[in-house]
Amino acid sequence: MTATSQLLGISNAIVDILAHVDQQLIDDLGIVPGSMNLIDEQRAREIYAMMGPATEMSGGSVANTVAGFANLGGDAAYIGRVRDDQFGEVFNHDMRSLGVDVRLAPSTDGAPTARSHILITGDGQRTMNTYLGACTELSVTDITAETIGTPKAVLLEGYVWDCPEGPMLAQKAIDIASERGAAIALSLSDSFCVQRHRDAFEGFVRDGVDIVLADEDEIVALLQTKSFDETLAALDAYDNLFAITRSEKGSVIKHGDQLHTQPATRVDKVVDSTGAGDAYSAGFLFGWVNDYTLADCARLGTWCATTVIQQLGARIERGVLDGFARN
Amino acid sequence: MTATSQLLGISNAIVDILAHVDQQLIDDLGIVPGSMNLIDEQRAREIYAMMGPATEMSGGSVANTVAGFANLGGDAAYIGRVRDDQFGEVFNHDMRSLGVDVRLAPSTDGAPTARSHILITGDGQRTMNTYLGACTELSVTDITAETIGTPKAVLLEGYVWDCPEGPMLAQKAIDIASERGAAIALSLSDSFCVQRHRDAFEGFVRDGVDIVLADEDEIVALLQTKSFDETLAALDAYDNLFAITRSEKGSVIKHGDQLHTQPATRVDKVVDSTGAGDAYSAGFLFGWVNDYTLADCARLGTWCATTVIQQLGARIERGVLDGFARN
Repeated sequence: MTATSQLLGISNAIVDILAHVDQQLIDDLGIVPGSMNLIDEQRAREIYAMMGPATEMSGGSVANTVAGFANLGGDAAYIGRVRDDQFGEVFNHDMRSLGVDVRLAPSTDGAPTARSHILITGDGQRTMNTYLGACTELSVTDITAETIGTPKAVLLEGYVWDCPEGPMLAQKAIDIASERGAAIALSLSDSFCVQRHRDAFEGFVRDGVDIVLADEDEIVALLQTKSFDETLAALDAYDNLFAITRSEKGSVIKHGDQLHTQPATRVDKVVDSTGAGDAYSAGFLFGWVNDYTLADCARLGTWCATTVIQQLGARIERGVLDGFARN
Repeated sequence: MTATSQLLGISNAIVDILAHVDQQLIDDLGIVPGSMNLIDEQRAREIYAMMGPATEMSGGSVANTVAGFANLGGDAAYIGRVRDDQFGEVFNHDMRSLGVDVRLAPSTDGAPTARSHILITGDGQRTMNTYLGACTELSVTDITAETIGTPKAVLLEGYVWDCPEGPMLAQKAIDIASERGAAIALSLSDSFCVQRHRDAFEGFVRDGVDIVLADEDEIVALLQTKSFDETLAALDAYDNLFAITRSEKGSVIKHGDQLHTQPATRVDKVVDSTGAGDAYSAGFLFGWVNDYTLADCARLGTWCATTVIQQLGARIERGVLDGFARN
């Protein structure tokens, strides 16, 4: 017997450590404002020691999407590796409390649960410094017929490729899931991640991936195009379903000949833009697994993203569907 | 050589685990809305399993006051016990990042760092369920001439009496600190705590304590009076300095013949009332160690409390003094 779910996420399980900081700290650390940086444990200690009082909460890009999908009422499952430490307990608790079926037990040895030190400057920009810890131990042996189950869609994130066995376990997950008729979705994570793994992503998108979730920077990095028009033209060479978010320019859905443009919803005040893309993916995929039209998938993605940027925190909460109506 | 500080706090070092919940959960758990309950590890696991996704941050009543005092620019030190686990690291990091001199090293064995499961209902009320863990191991041997140093004031909280060696270590701290000329302040924590330890607190207030920080419920529980007028009359029998907060009725300072009434500041919207009393104490004590008049101490306490209820989170942040002017 294998576990069923509509959506299975496979990603880096991360606890966020958030603090407001002065721009000076970003400068002193020599990091690019707004970037996501991979750091080792030594650097993590260094940055943490320089940060002010912080707040901790579960994070991770695709983990946010899976949590949002569950909060929309979807049946979700998750594969990601944490250690049996307090942050690991926090991460798994938060997922389980939403009804997400957490498929892996925490590691009893090895590196501690991953943490991302998120430095928030006065302009609301977030600079992430991620120590992958236990995530890097996610292994090919964690991906089995049993842990995959029989989902309608599997969602992988580009960041998984930053783990030593990431490319191999992603391929194995795709093989098992595809054989069982699941669709494969890939979130491109961030443009630097795309640069790190461009050839691998390109190969996966050409062969294996059904749905590509990306923002404009990421898709441009993948296709090495120079403008968005050029990007759209380049997509003609692919038969995947693309959902591309463009911040205040809305989003574009492309699938073969079909092209749908979804405008962004104007909001009075952006409280916190974190998680907008992850929330969009949650809404889009929730629509997709429930056989919404692509236009309605895009509308629900936009609805979720609009909700999340008007609240503190990266995960959409329960009740987000209240007020949403399909066309 | 001993470490100097203006204020030394001795209290239960706690990490808060906060989640929004339905009123139904409070009812199902059979707890009094708005109360602080002491729970064991088994009950802590039970409650955590029933809570939704949560946010973690450093807490603890007097720890909040010490953090606020440091954020006002005061020179602060802290004695409280955490374990060498991730929550312990979070707690000590948050204190140190404010410049607080953390006097004890984390325990290398024993119970995990304390956590309070704070259930926030739709009406903004917070119901606390505290597993004291490592706090209960704070010991008489932790209180030495070296760890006390030479502060201008020592602040204890009533909750310390909930720990097995609490009464003894509090007495030892008072003895060492008094001999060195420090003033002793006691925060009464909550009215249920006062009921648990009334005789001990009464004895300490009569002999040893210089400054009593309390809200109306707590002072009424201590003096077993029936009205606030009766309470004020009863205070004539004490020569301590009392700072009594009364929510929207403001605060009252009483010291022998001196009586000062400080009105509350009207605010448009209370975002989160948590930590109002702790913030008041931070402002009041910052004024006191800096030789403000009692009226100005009360004004700064009110200023800090007014600030903290208009933000999310229980600790006042740096810059809170901007705009405050003494009379």
